[in-house]
Amino acid sequence: MPYKAPVRDLTFFLNEVLEIDRYTNQAGFSEVSSDLVQQILEEGAKFAEEVIAPLNRTGDAEGCKLEAGVVTGPTGWKEAYHQMVEAGWPSLTCDPEFGGQGMPSIVGMAFGQFTAAASAAFSMYPGLTHGCYEALHANGSPEQKAKYLPKLATGEWGGTMNLTEPQCGTDLGLIRTKAVPNADGSYSITGQKIWISSGEHDFVDNIVHLVLARIEGAPAGIKGISLFVVPKFLVNDDGSLGERNGVECVGLEHKMGIHGNATCVMQYEGAKGWLVGQENKGMAAMFVMMNEARLGTGLQGLAIATAAYQAAVEFANDRLQGRSLTGPKNADGPADPIIVHPDVRRMLLEAKAIVEGGQGFVLWTALQADLQRSEDEAVATKAKDYMALITPVVKAYLTDRGFHATSLAMQVHGGSGYTEHFPASQYLRDARITMIYEGANGIQALDLVGRKLPQNGGRAIMSWFGDIDAYVNEQSGNEAVKPFIEGLAESKKALQEATMWLMQNGMQNPDNAGAASTDYLHIFGLTALAYVWAQMAVAAQKQIDAGSSDPFYAGKIATGRYFVERMLPDVGAHLKKLKTGADVLMSVPAAAF
Amino acid sequence: MPYKAPVRDLTFFLNEVLEIDRYTNQAGFSEVSSDLVQQILEEGAKFAEEVIAPLNRTGDAEGCKLEAGVVTGPTGWKEAYHQMVEAGWPSLTCDPEFGGQGMPSIVGMAFGQFTAAASAAFSMYPGLTHGCYEALHANGSPEQKAKYLPKLATGEWGGTMNLTEPQCGTDLGLIRTKAVPNADGSYSITGQKIWISSGEHDFVDNIVHLVLARIEGAPAGIKGISLFVVPKFLVNDDGSLGERNGVECVGLEHKMGIHGNATCVMQYEGAKGWLVGQENKGMAAMFVMMNEARLGTGLQGLAIATAAYQAAVEFANDRLQGRSLTGPKNADGPADPIIVHPDVRRMLLEAKAIVEGGQGFVLWTALQADLQRSEDEAVATKAKDYMALITPVVKAYLTDRGFHATSLAMQVHGGSGYTEHFPASQYLRDARITMIYEGANGIQALDLVGRKLPQNGGRAIMSWFGDIDAYVNEQSGNEAVKPFIEGLAESKKALQEATMWLMQNGMQNPDNAGAASTDYLHIFGLTALAYVWAQMAVAAQKQIDAGSSDPFYAGKIATGRYFVERMLPDVGAHLKKLKTGADVLMSVPAAAF
Repeated sequence: MPYKAPVRDLTFFLNEVLEIDRYTNQAGFSEVSSDLVQQILEEGAKFAEEVIAPLNRTGDAEGCKLEAGVVTGPTGWKEAYHQMVEAGWPSLTCDPEFGGQGMPSIVGMAFGQFTAAASAAFSMYPGLTHGCYEALHANGSPEQKAKYLPKLATGEWGGTMNLTEPQCGTDLGLIRTKAVPNADGSYSITGQKIWISSGEHDFVDNIVHLVLARIEGAPAGIKGISLFVVPKFLVNDDGSLGERNGVECVGLEHKMGIHGNATCVMQYEGAKGWLVGQENKGMAAMFVMMNEARLGTGLQGLAIATAAYQAAVEFANDRLQGRSLTGPKNADGPADPIIVHPDVRRMLLEAKAIVEGGQGFVLWTALQADLQRSEDEAVATKAKDYMALITPVVKAYLTDRGFHATSLAMQVHGGSGYTEHFPASQYLRDARITMIYEGANGIQALDLVGRKLPQNGGRAIMSWFGDIDAYVNEQSGNEAVKPFIEGLAESKKALQEATMWLMQNGMQNPDNAGAASTDYLHIFGLTALAYVWAQMAVAAQKQIDAGSSDPFYAGKIATGRYFVERMLPDVGAHLKKLKTGADVLMSVPAAAF
Repeated sequence: MPYKAPVRDLTFFLNEVLEIDRYTNQAGFSEVSSDLVQQILEEGAKFAEEVIAPLNRTGDAEGCKLEAGVVTGPTGWKEAYHQMVEAGWPSLTCDPEFGGQGMPSIVGMAFGQFTAAASAAFSMYPGLTHGCYEALHANGSPEQKAKYLPKLATGEWGGTMNLTEPQCGTDLGLIRTKAVPNADGSYSITGQKIWISSGEHDFVDNIVHLVLARIEGAPAGIKGISLFVVPKFLVNDDGSLGERNGVECVGLEHKMGIHGNATCVMQYEGAKGWLVGQENKGMAAMFVMMNEARLGTGLQGLAIATAAYQAAVEFANDRLQGRSLTGPKNADGPADPIIVHPDVRRMLLEAKAIVEGGQGFVLWTALQADLQRSEDEAVATKAKDYMALITPVVKAYLTDRGFHATSLAMQVHGGSGYTEHFPASQYLRDARITMIYEGANGIQALDLVGRKLPQNGGRAIMSWFGDIDAYVNEQSGNEAVKPFIEGLAESKKALQEATMWLMQNGMQNPDNAGAASTDYLHIFGLTALAYVWAQMAVAAQKQIDAGSSDPFYAGKIATGRYFVERMLPDVGAHLKKLKTGADVLMSVPAAAF
């Protein structure tokens, strides 16, 4: 069975949990209805399943090729990319002013799960382009917007994000790429950027590079970084393409996975670039794209896990091996399917609980992205607070648990999973990068405890705790879902305790915050999923109480029960570890490692 | 820095924890002294570092090639293999009667860690050969022993283990390979075996295949399986090689890792084979090799983690990025080395705690392997009990945590780790198989709770609990290592509680045992490592108390402290999960996955 987009799971969350029809009075939702969303997702599912998914293994096996600066994608990828552009998918959530369809993020982040699951490497071509579109939309001058946005919105042109250099990944203050002002107001950009996803390829006529560089004489460190737009081909005033710019792909990385995506070494040699936003404020401008990329990466890690989980379920149903511990379940066959074994079910349910909980978490986050634009200031502020707070959790927790789920999916396959004959290996290899790029997960954890938590005096987390408390109270009489509500309340209590510990110990010694950060992020992620699972259980139970015998609802409750009983206990272990503080880590001399 | 064999860590455990000089009165130890072991390990380290380690990446990049039944290994591997044979390493622990050096298992399992870390794929050639040697040594007829053992002992010939067929991996009762008796007492073997590690290669003159097959008319299932020795070239009575046998490699698996090892599809077409041991008792005979392979796999998973950890430490010391949270530590440089960051240290210390704890666990297990041969019946019985009980834990726990450690090692590298330019990717890809082959980890967990625990009325586990209790009592006044002893006592208490739960619930419903098995195995593994770490802490503290200022001892205590504070808390989470029982897993209908 090839990948099957989980339309029902997502529309259940959108319609029965988030109840998106409630938001028609919010900016961006005026033309949105649950019916329309359903229709879009069904079409999107078809596209992901039929056009993109079949390319995934080809991409892994062939990878990309570089010859004299020209990068060629795997067989069939260019054609599929064009099909995608023609079908209008890249512009789904773009601004109608620039040719977009104006759909809200919840629709984009639902469809995005389908494409990333169908092929993570393929989805990075439109993914980076969209990030570039958003950054220019937020920070570009009117001329820049007019010049680049329409073609980026449709996907006719590609977009990239150029941050990393050989000497700097996480620490962008070390950037050396230089920008020298030209007489015409443009800049000459010179330097090398590495690990540039979709940096060069043959799918599009032009590629718009967003490049962090240092203007001559700028202050040292992060405060001297500016953002530039550097097109592969210069764009004439009439929109036609002009001369080739001084930027070239000089190398492709040989990577463990995502082979179908060209990870490029980009050499800028006096390339013409134009300042985006203000001088020396490049980091702030780039953060629009980086935040989008972080959410996209969380979604990607989760999406790969979804596909890996599906492959594992198929294998577990097909593979006949051994007998059930309680007597044959397939007495006429030579053996039982391995899905009869409790430990196989444990692995599958763990992956399923992560995948379905994560899907809801992503959609809830997407809703916050949309509500940021609300005209109701209180709604908008709260949504912005949540976005800031939640972004590192979506990125790091979902990629960490997503990788874990792909590894479980491989394990279900036994030896078959280790051969490249089955898709499990590609999923595992592809998923591993999501824990690293767009800010390694440790950096996300530090961002969470060091920046996002204390922002505005802790307003975001207090507000979130308030929401959870209100929900727990509201559902306190709902006997049928009691374990879900109790689990949520306990997890939230632990998170609160961890937050208090951080306040008391992190200020006094920042190393305590660093030492606690990853465990804190995991408690946060578990609490977020507990919240999602509680809401899904309530919505499913409502249908069951109303007489529905649809096994879909019973399945949701059963999977959620696994989450509560078998995943939430990790909260206590994380809390214990967190409270041990920095000393155990910092007292070891570097030479003792 | 290339791989550096941890001689000091291992000799510390052998000499200062196990105090191997105490065992000279035991069978197999008469010629063993700590000085001799030190000398062997130093030579072995040199060989692993200088001859084997440099081949590892070549093996990954080139893999093996199959042309017309002939398998060629990667560049330089054949030569290194011959160098190893000439140096006498394969015969280290073999029986002097058959040309071996008669060293005990503790020496073999120490040296084995070096070769497996230097190159996991390479070490599988002598590894499988040694397993084949052991199985024939235990079960072969005198003629078979005389014919095969001397050449297997030296490594001049290779050995393999042929169990799996396309329709059966775990469930060997489904084996179809046929054995038809010939008039001369031999059998004609026909069938296909898959995933045969080192199945065919050009390093040796002959390969001795041990093959599970079904003699015509044998009972169905596992009770009709017999073991055969099937040489690639028939061996004449004078020991010279005769005609080519009817066995051929017809395919190589394309795998995620261990590319340098030839994983073969072996086709037997009327190949001449000779029964090893009794008819229809093949499983019991093969279990000698399987148990050895399980220990070897646990060791392998751990060894790869050792090498991966070392690479991560080197990267963390070299990579300058960002500043310490408590002010610059490398003020003259552009940034601090990333080892200043608490979360980087968390990852490194977690890997280090697993690696060094695991090293001790492996050596302790090897000592049991040796003591099985004791003339003191009580000592031998206890050692046999322990071997049976511990084997699935060594295999599954060390490979599970070993893989986790290799993944942490990649994470420390950031984006660099995902490129094939650094060794992190190969370590991760190579390590992943160890959780799967030689009985997937879930099977090990089931073996532990379903077979090993109840054996002899639980004698083994009761004896182990007794040892731990005695040790805890003995050290109860040792204030300096109090947290280690308390941690061990608590973990053992949880394991005891889990064991009671299994007794009460597993009998009544075997699915409860299956559902609890993996969490049980993890509590067991954590307790085993807590025991090892407590003993290492006691030994290190003894030196410190005696005035040693060697940082090695302080380092051991610091790493052990990480284990106690940051890893042992998982025990509680596993216990909680374990007690949820089978219902949460089994009540989900297969269609709901």
